[in-house]
Formats: sequence, C-alpha cells, structure tokens
Amino acid sequence: MTANRFVIGVDLGGTNIVVGAVSEDGTRRLAPRTALTHASQGPDAVTDRIATLIDAVIGDAHESEGVGRSAILGVGIGAPGPIDRDRGSVVVAPNLHWTDFPLRDEVGARTGLSTWLDNDANCATFGEWWIGAGRGARDMIGLTIGTGIGGGIILGGRLYHGASGVAGEVGHMTIETQGRRCSCGNYGCLEAYASGTAIAERAREAVSGNDSSALHGLVQGDLSRLNARIVYEAATRGDAIALEVVRDTAKFLGAGVANLLNMFNPEVVVLAGGVTHAGHALFEPMRAEVRRRAFRAAWEAARIVPGELAGDAGVVGAVATFLRHDAAV
Amino acid sequence: MTANRFVIGVDLGGTNIVVGAVSEDGTRRLAPRTALTHASQGPDAVTDRIATLIDAVIGDAHESEGVGRSAILGVGIGAPGPIDRDRGSVVVAPNLHWTDFPLRDEVGARTGLSTWLDNDANCATFGEWWIGAGRGARDMIGLTIGTGIGGGIILGGRLYHGASGVAGEVGHMTIETQGRRCSCGNYGCLEAYASGTAIAERAREAVSGNDSSALHGLVQGDLSRLNARIVYEAATRGDAIALEVVRDTAKFLGAGVANLLNMFNPEVVVLAGGVTHAGHALFEPMRAEVRRRAFRAAWEAARIVPGELAGDAGVVGAVATFLRHDAAV
Repeated sequence: MTANRFVIGVDLGGTNIVVGAVSEDGTRRLAPRTALTHASQGPDAVTDRIATLIDAVIGDAHESEGVGRSAILGVGIGAPGPIDRDRGSVVVAPNLHWTDFPLRDEVGARTGLSTWLDNDANCATFGEWWIGAGRGARDMIGLTIGTGIGGGIILGGRLYHGASGVAGEVGHMTIETQGRRCSCGNYGCLEAYASGTAIAERAREAVSGNDSSALHGLVQGDLSRLNARIVYEAATRGDAIALEVVRDTAKFLGAGVANLLNMFNPEVVVLAGGVTHAGHALFEPMRAEVRRRAFRAAWEAARIVPGELAGDAGVVGAVATFLRHDAAV
Repeated sequence: MTANRFVIGVDLGGTNIVVGAVSEDGTRRLAPRTALTHASQGPDAVTDRIATLIDAVIGDAHESEGVGRSAILGVGIGAPGPIDRDRGSVVVAPNLHWTDFPLRDEVGARTGLSTWLDNDANCATFGEWWIGAGRGARDMIGLTIGTGIGGGIILGGRLYHGASGVAGEVGHMTIETQGRRCSCGNYGCLEAYASGTAIAERAREAVSGNDSSALHGLVQGDLSRLNARIVYEAATRGDAIALEVVRDTAKFLGAGVANLLNMFNPEVVVLAGGVTHAGHALFEPMRAEVRRRAFRAAWEAARIVPGELAGDAGVVGAVATFLRHDAAV
C-alpha cells in the first residue's frame, strides 16, 4: 500500500458522473472530474463518457502529480440499482433506464484497465468505512439519504451483500404497515417518510392548508418547488411547520436506526447525503428517538454520526470496493 | 467428528429446564430430561438443579449407549436475556429475576466439565442451522415465536452477535411507529403484534364486543384464558374472528420477515416456536405478504420455512454453540 499508486473511482448517478483518483493507501485524493450523465442517450454513450472522464483524470494525475499510467491499478465503479457483481452488470437501474448492462467489461474494454463494479450505496458506505466516519469499525451500517434512501452493511470489515446482492436495502424496511406508498411498491417504507422526496411531500401536505408558513414565500407560492433544503432553511428561520417536518423526519429516522441497532448491533451508523445536511437539528432528536426505542446495550455500543466524505463518498467507495472486492461477502 | 463423543445441551427457560445429549456429529440425540425451573428459589438452587440433570443425562448415556464420562466433551447452555459471553454470565433475565449471574462457571464448577453459554434464541437458531431446517445455508435468520419473539442471525455459517451481544433482536423491530406498547418499553415492535401474548391480546380485544365467537365457549367465558393455541383451534373450526386474528398475525410477521429479507437477504428464514404451529394457515398468507413487501430478488433467494427441531432446538443449539463457539462473531 503506497501513496504513489492510484485507483480511479467512478460514481455513476442518474444526473451526474463523477470520476476521481485516490491513492491505494487512501491518503491522497485528486480533484475529480464531472459530467452530466445524459442517461437518455443510452448505455453506450454513457460508457463512452465514463471512459473519456477516466482518460482525463489519468491525464490530470500525470500532469499534476507525475503519476504514470503504470501506477494506475484499476477502476472501481459504483452504479445505481441492483448489481450482478459476478457478471459485472447493472441488473436494473430505473433512473438510468438500463437493464442488464455489462458496465464493468464495457469500461474495461474501453480503458484497458482492470475494473470492478458494485452498488452505489454499498460503495458510499465502504468509502466512509475506509477513510471516513466509520474507519476502524468492525461492524458498520451506512445510510445515504437523498432522493431515496440507500444503505450498505459492513460486517467484520467486509461489505455484506447477502444471497442475491440485495442486502442493505435499509430504506425499504417497513416502519408503518399501513403507511405511505413507496416508490418500490411497498407501503410504509422508511424511504417513504424520511427521504428528501418524502420530506418535501410531507411539507407540501402540511403547508397546503396553512398560508402563514414561510415555506410559501421561499418557493414563491409554487409548492412543487419545495425540497428538503428549503424546508431546512425555513426551519432555521423558526417556521413552525418546517420545524415540525424536521422533528418528524428525525423520529422516523430514529425508528429506522433503532431497528438497525436491535438487529445488527453495529459499532457505528453513518448517515450521509443531502438530507443529513440539517446537522444537529436532525441528529440530536434522531439520537433521542433511537435511545427511546432501541435496547440500551445496543445504543450504548453505537456511534450515530454524519458522513465525513460529503460528495466524495461515491468515488472513494468505488476505489475501496476495487481494492477490497476479494474481501467482500 | 464422531457419533461416539457427546456434548450436553442445557435449555434454561423461565418455566422449564431441558437437558439432553447430542453426538458431536449431530447424528445421535439421546432422550432429554426436564425439570421445573422454580426460578423463585434463586440462581444457586436453579444451578444445582441444572447440575443434577446433567449428571442424570450422563448416567442415561452410560446406561443406554455405553458412553463413558471421558466421551462427554462439555456442556453448552442457552439462557434467556442478554448474555456476556466473555464472562459467561446472564446479564439480565427478567423472567428468571437474575442479574449478572456467572452461570457458565457455576455449572462448570459443579460438573467439572468445560462449559459455554449463549443466548437461548441464538442457540435455537444455531441448532436449526446445524441439523435442522437451515442446514447448509450460508446466511440464515431464525425466529422463535412464543410468549415473546427471539431471533438469531447466522452469517457465513457463524452466529453473529454484534458489538455488544444484542444482535438478532428481530422481535424488537418497530413496524408501527405509534403502535402497541411492547414489553421492552418501545412502541410498535413486531413482538407486540405477533407473539403468542400479542395474539391472545388481539383476540381478546376482537371478541370482547362479539358474543357469537366460538372463542367464548373455548375458554368457558373466561377471556383471560385465551391463548394462541385456542385461537388456532377456533380458526380451524371456522370462527370468523379467530381467522381474522390469524390472518393479521401472518401480515405482521410477513412485514417483519420482509424487513429481514431487504436488510439481510438471507438464503433461509426459519420460524419456530409455539405460534408457528398453525402451519399452512399462517405460513401461506405470511409468504404472500412477504412477496408483496420485499424486493423480488430477495424473496426469490429465500426459503421461509418452519423449524424442524421442535422442542429440541434449544438443546441441540446449546450443543452446537459449545462445539462452534470459536467460530462465532
């Protein structure tokens, strides 16, 4: 493990592609390159764009750090949706409109580099475990809370994938059996209450009958523009409805994290993604809810902390999954 | 691993102690001995009783099978409540009224045998994995549904205990955030809906305003005598209220199992304990509910099956945990 050999990390999202380089020992991260995904152009065009970004990042590494191509060990890719790791393919990615696309080998063929593919939420979790908020932990659960809620599980320092690669779908645990419809088709999933989409929806419902809320002004009366960031802004200004939405979000997340604690009893739970940017206003009531619900021995053993890698988690985790995919289960 | 060396298994419950012997290779099980726990007499009296039963079982093994004392490898004990495996003590066992009792060493001192202690629900799960319904599985979740709901997790063929030994408390996952009060202090736990106690409670509520239900006759008008077995009997006779209670139980269990599938993606989920004796009437609607809620890739990969060891699971699992405690995590 040296600081002189690098791995390329690719974070493929529905909107953006982010490609960066991280040294094998995790100590050096080069500035990433980004491009719009333009998923509608189809998987081949997107793969071409990924390969172009990889070339550019390798060029950057050479120019700024004097890293030769022989010091590039390979490419790790994090992609949305269920992944077939053995075949290196994206099984289904609704927000890319892809089905069964062999992304790993397509990127490998275009770049001539050894390539590995895993789920994006697994990658983000593994990144936080490698050099972020979960480093040193034996057992860790990671949640990425944005438009949806993704998750990853690390047990004994290895990513846990389960029998068919589905493990870690913590956003899709039922917390209300008769609850809100979730995008997965189920009712009452955690994601249907605490994702960015769900926060906006709950806020819209709450203000639609209340003209005095500051939320109306922040979206110039157009409630379709409401999102979690705007709710947080209104909460910071003391808007009663926004504060209630944040408090409820903390309670739902607290119930979900308590379930994880009672089942996995991990050393650390790392929460990252846009929704966690509310910081203390979200984490403090969430931790209180966890203490109300989980076994004492479970919450006493667990740190519940925000991610440290911010936008880099996907790239760092893709690198980590390349370096350690032989250790995954 | 031979059929000629034996391990003693102790299943310590709030009401009964069951002690049996199982051969090292799992192929031979000798008839167990049982005694009432009489927990109110205190931990020393209970430990004496355990030691007496162990002596009797060793005597039986000698008489019926010609097994000498030198062929007894040791003792595995499954006990209720959180366990400190390193110290070999029962941390808290509400239904025994024990706190911090060093059961492992006390039994070891009285018998002169090498002894190991684990949680009873972990033991029952490990027994089903070793020679029961989960044998051969890499990843398995076990639920024991009786008065309460206990659980155990096997990952990669090893019992998973988590950071402080709490892992596997699947009965205490919240499935209704504002739901029924649970004995653990939380609201809306799976146990508060689908344990034997909860089934009786829901049935009592349902019949209290309905005089025509057969349930009244089955308890001679004394609703305090209602239990899950009587509800099942009434359901078999076609009683509408009992049938609804069973259907609802299947739905709650289905939501819980779906959560386990989306999080752990195991190969098999084994459900054992008195509440599962309803058989098909419970398992079929439960599996249907799981398919409605969990990801297809998760339920396609998982068998959801009743336990095979019946009352022996505790003893067999205690033996398994003795034999393989070095492989636990």
